[in-house]
Amino acid sequence: MAHIGPHTRGVYIISVTPFIEEGDIDWASVDSLVEFYIEKGVSGVTILGMMGEAQKLAEAESAAFAKYFIERVAGRVPVIVGVSHAGIDNLVALSKSVMDVGAAGVMIAPATGLKTEVQIRDYFGAVFKRLGPSIPVCFQDYPLGTGVNISVPTFLQLVDEHPSLVMFKHEDWPGLKKLQQVRRACDGKARRRISILCGNGGLYLPQELHRGADGAMTGFAYPEMLVEVCRKFFDGRSDEAEDLFDIYLPLVRHEQQIGVGLAIRKEILRRRGAIRSAAVRAPGPRLDSDDVAELDRLMQRLERRLSAGRGRASDIAA
Amino acid sequence: MAHIGPHTRGVYIISVTPFIEEGDIDWASVDSLVEFYIEKGVSGVTILGMMGEAQKLAEAESAAFAKYFIERVAGRVPVIVGVSHAGIDNLVALSKSVMDVGAAGVMIAPATGLKTEVQIRDYFGAVFKRLGPSIPVCFQDYPLGTGVNISVPTFLQLVDEHPSLVMFKHEDWPGLKKLQQVRRACDGKARRRISILCGNGGLYLPQELHRGADGAMTGFAYPEMLVEVCRKFFDGRSDEAEDLFDIYLPLVRHEQQIGVGLAIRKEILRRRGAIRSAAVRAPGPRLDSDDVAELDRLMQRLERRLSAGRGRASDIAA
Amino acid sequence: MAHIGPHTRGVYIISVTPFIEEGDIDWASVDSLVEFYIEKGVSGVTILGMMGEAQKLAEAESAAFAKYFIERVAGRVPVIVGVSHAGIDNLVALSKSVMDVGAAGVMIAPATGLKTEVQIRDYFGAVFKRLGPSIPVCFQDYPLGTGVNISVPTFLQLVDEHPSLVMFKHEDWPGLKKLQQVRRACDGKARRRISILCGNGGLYLPQELHRGADGAMTGFAYPEMLVEVCRKFFDGRSDEAEDLFDIYLPLVRHEQQIGVGLAIRKEILRRRGAIRSAAVRAPGPRLDSDDVAELDRLMQRLERRLSAGRGRASDIAA
Amino acid sequence: MAHIGPHTRGVYIISVTPFIEEGDIDWASVDSLVEFYIEKGVSGVTILGMMGEAQKLAEAESAAFAKYFIERVAGRVPVIVGVSHAGIDNLVALSKSVMDVGAAGVMIAPATGLKTEVQIRDYFGAVFKRLGPSIPVCFQDYPLGTGVNISVPTFLQLVDEHPSLVMFKHEDWPGLKKLQQVRRACDGKARRRISILCGNGGLYLPQELHRGADGAMTGFAYPEMLVEVCRKFFDGRSDEAEDLFDIYLPLVRHEQQIGVGLAIRKEILRRRGAIRSAAVRAPGPRLDSDDVAELDRLMQRLERRLSAGRGRASDIAA
Repeated sequence: MAHIGPHTRGVYIISVTPFIEEGDIDWASVDSLVEFYIEKGVSGVTILGMMGEAQKLAEAESAAFAKYFIERVAGRVPVIVGVSHAGIDNLVALSKSVMDVGAAGVMIAPATGLKTEVQIRDYFGAVFKRLGPSIPVCFQDYPLGTGVNISVPTFLQLVDEHPSLVMFKHEDWPGLKKLQQVRRACDGKARRRISILCGNGGLYLPQELHRGADGAMTGFAYPEMLVEVCRKFFDGRSDEAEDLFDIYLPLVRHEQQIGVGLAIRKEILRRRGAIRSAAVRAPGPRLDSDDVAELDRLMQRLERRLSAGRGRASDIAA
Repeated sequence: MAHIGPHTRGVYIISVTPFIEEGDIDWASVDSLVEFYIEKGVSGVTILGMMGEAQKLAEAESAAFAKYFIERVAGRVPVIVGVSHAGIDNLVALSKSVMDVGAAGVMIAPATGLKTEVQIRDYFGAVFKRLGPSIPVCFQDYPLGTGVNISVPTFLQLVDEHPSLVMFKHEDWPGLKKLQQVRRACDGKARRRISILCGNGGLYLPQELHRGADGAMTGFAYPEMLVEVCRKFFDGRSDEAEDLFDIYLPLVRHEQQIGVGLAIRKEILRRRGAIRSAAVRAPGPRLDSDDVAELDRLMQRLERRLSAGRGRASDIAA
Repeated sequence: MAHIGPHTRGVYIISVTPFIEEGDIDWASVDSLVEFYIEKGVSGVTILGMMGEAQKLAEAESAAFAKYFIERVAGRVPVIVGVSHAGIDNLVALSKSVMDVGAAGVMIAPATGLKTEVQIRDYFGAVFKRLGPSIPVCFQDYPLGTGVNISVPTFLQLVDEHPSLVMFKHEDWPGLKKLQQVRRACDGKARRRISILCGNGGLYLPQELHRGADGAMTGFAYPEMLVEVCRKFFDGRSDEAEDLFDIYLPLVRHEQQIGVGLAIRKEILRRRGAIRSAAVRAPGPRLDSDDVAELDRLMQRLERRLSAGRGRASDIAA
Repeated sequence: MAHIGPHTRGVYIISVTPFIEEGDIDWASVDSLVEFYIEKGVSGVTILGMMGEAQKLAEAESAAFAKYFIERVAGRVPVIVGVSHAGIDNLVALSKSVMDVGAAGVMIAPATGLKTEVQIRDYFGAVFKRLGPSIPVCFQDYPLGTGVNISVPTFLQLVDEHPSLVMFKHEDWPGLKKLQQVRRACDGKARRRISILCGNGGLYLPQELHRGADGAMTGFAYPEMLVEVCRKFFDGRSDEAEDLFDIYLPLVRHEQQIGVGLAIRKEILRRRGAIRSAAVRAPGPRLDSDDVAELDRLMQRLERRLSAGRGRASDIAA
């Protein structure tokens, strides 16, 4: 299987984990979800991320889910697996097991509780030593979720010390300047290149692309927008890319509500036929009738906008 | 002067505090800023909020700024003053001093460090006792800034215990359900009505209005959009309101970056002639050339969209 | 097996999880550790707590460890098992599995990320519903570790709503007043009694006993002190109890350093023959030569004090 | 006046700010408090620290208190003034004003909200630039209070960049290794020496002295113990020092309860005649009858221990 590397670009969709109402993994929905993502043109998929409810799966489920998912993808696109865990042994064991079944790399966030940047560096020193040189790693920088903050110089030390660190999942917020600093420092000249994909629901995707991102790694329920925005941007049509983005922005913003946003995302995916149930495992959010009515309005507005936009996207972009 | 009350509605703009480059208050810019806000149609102004850099003013500056600002407004709209302070004595002293010079009410956030909801309740018990019954209070619920979380039942206890608590500044995130629960509980029947104005940069304003908000209390640098969105919504034209909102949403989102967002806001206000300098007091963010170029693009896109929108806003909304 | 209940008292020692240097569970040391704890007179044992490195065990290890430990204890004292987990399914599955092999109850802390007290209440509502009425639960109130704060009235609601909540592990800090408020509210008259055992390394044990605690649930490496302090106190000799406590206080305080304290505790247990290795799983603290020399001094001082004390403990207490 | 410098050692007591019951500063108690501290043998005093309730004073009060306090001390010992403030302008203004009236230096904690170590470094870069080279600065490292974490290499950068940084107030917890690392790095050879004084209520004072601290900067209500422990230690009688410390340890630990500890400290100072009222400004803790009874017991136990100890301190230490 192809591994992720310093030139990986495009959209790596953060996959949800589909459940049946009673809470078990919905394997049939995994099938349809895989086809949905691939059909929408994603360059890769990231599974078992925070928005994949990884922390609520049993370990056996995680391993089974990763294996099943990767088999269904069947090499059509690379699959990254989130392996963050409070214990390094478990992190390493999961990493090796998913690489064995064909993962393209693993994603690791600094463990909650790390307080200083020396501690972060020591932590990743231990992690990389245990992982060995052959497993490509994506560093997930998501302070809002982990409570761990790293500055650019410390991140660059990690890049310098660990050759298998090949990707930066940018998810600090606000973080446009940080993204740009990493991009400029890891430019392939002064320092080896790394891939930078952006999270945060895609809320600043056009700005991130302008600042040097290689694409997105987020789970917005309309992956085709992310794909098309990146494609247009890399084709040199950045204004068109942003015009398209702006049409979806109300929903991007709506889905980017931490907590309830996952229920919204799964409900949209359900409506679009990607999964059969929007169930989120407990503890987790549920939509009530007000939430549903609100989502109805926003989706209808998107539909109207897309219809209207089809007639004149070109002159808006002019 | 008119006080804020349970039926206050519309847009209470969160005012910046203008500084000259060297850091002193720019009094001439206060003049122009007041006229700018009023000309844009705001229903009221809130000064000395967190985005007004209140925590970086000397106490004498705060008092002088409040007095000067209120005098320049000269009763044309009500002025709320943020008075949050680590010590209750200081909070009370500032409250009384600003009410004496014509403030319409004060805004208070729970003090950083309060951990349980009993502590929050005790804190406000002490505050209200000291303030007395005649100063109208807006409760600022901004957990992302204060680290203090309150659930709806505890807030309702505060409403029941303190008649001078007349307004809820909704700024929890995500918080649409919380807003709606407060609205339904304080409906003027089962429980007395309170006014609910929304912050968070206005990022969810249309949704908040649907859920029962009375308007916005935020500092977006295009106050006329907030004003017009509220006006259209209360006129029953909610789709038109949201169409207009969506045109500005890319900039709403851009300004809503905690930290650097204040520098962006001040720079837009400077470009629009409201203030002479975008200076933020230290420690504070500054825009570099990349930030400026990015803002240029976003403002140009807004201009284009507004021009295009003038021709066909109606059919988009149809 | 006997279950924990409202009248449980004494010392429930928080067990470490012994590892060999390479990191696997050291089963032989589990044998010796069980005998060590029982020989020191503990009333019960709590395994898989935070200081048992539960979060760094694989799920299969946790289940195997619990089963093995409980079998070795063989009913001589009750064993409580920590089952906190990010997902309720996993929490419930582990709870049922350990009850099946003879656990006396489970210990649950509110999930990290709960912000308001309504959320805490909802969370435990879901947990208790899934656990059913027959599994006795100890609520672990440890804000410093979980980031979740609960006030007394909300905790009392949980007591009123969930009859199988029978024990409060008091570990808020500072928290003497909270402990006393829970004790007075759950006095067996106005409200049903619950057991209260105290954590925080035992740092305030004499004060906690005076305030109504039923004993300790902590892992101090000299369990015989905790046992004897409780015994003396409940025999009405509170000053003698505190005299004994004070002799150990320098080491209690030394072990109560979050993080490195676990390495200190395991090293003392190793020196005392309870386990063969002081290894802590990664990521985890290690003692360097300075730490070891410091511990040497403190342990020697304790030995001297104990020898001196044997001659005249009575007249100090007089 | 003598300034603090790299060789400052001994006990710099953190002074409380005495209030009358109604909340104003109790100037008469300032007089008695100054005499109390000096009589107990402190080497210096630090005023307007967090435990001095600085954040609850009005700015005019802070300035007046500092001036009055320094005048009463009248050069007998150096006085450091805490000047931490959300705004750098205010921090600098207060610093200059207190230096003008005879302060020996200022103490500055990193502003709450700094997240990365680059941000901390930038912050202090701005602060030192504004302060100029002639004001000696003590860096307060108190993550539990500020939420800001700094690792040793970043702190050493500050030392290298800012010659007027002459003292490290060590108050990380746990932090014995950090203290030692700073001590070894700033040894006067490889890098210039700085003074290191320890806070945290003195809870680990003997260990800190062994690790290279120059003394204590904390506010324990029995300053004579801190003074005598340091004196004995620097005289080479470390075991005697620790014997004395251990006698007070139960009260050191009792006072070291964040929040209520301040009320306890002030009550002890009141009982000892140092101040007339134990009042803490709102919002602040108050002792109830249970707290008072508990404190009575602990103080009586200390008295008994001190009496007993007088007869045989030497043979305990033997």
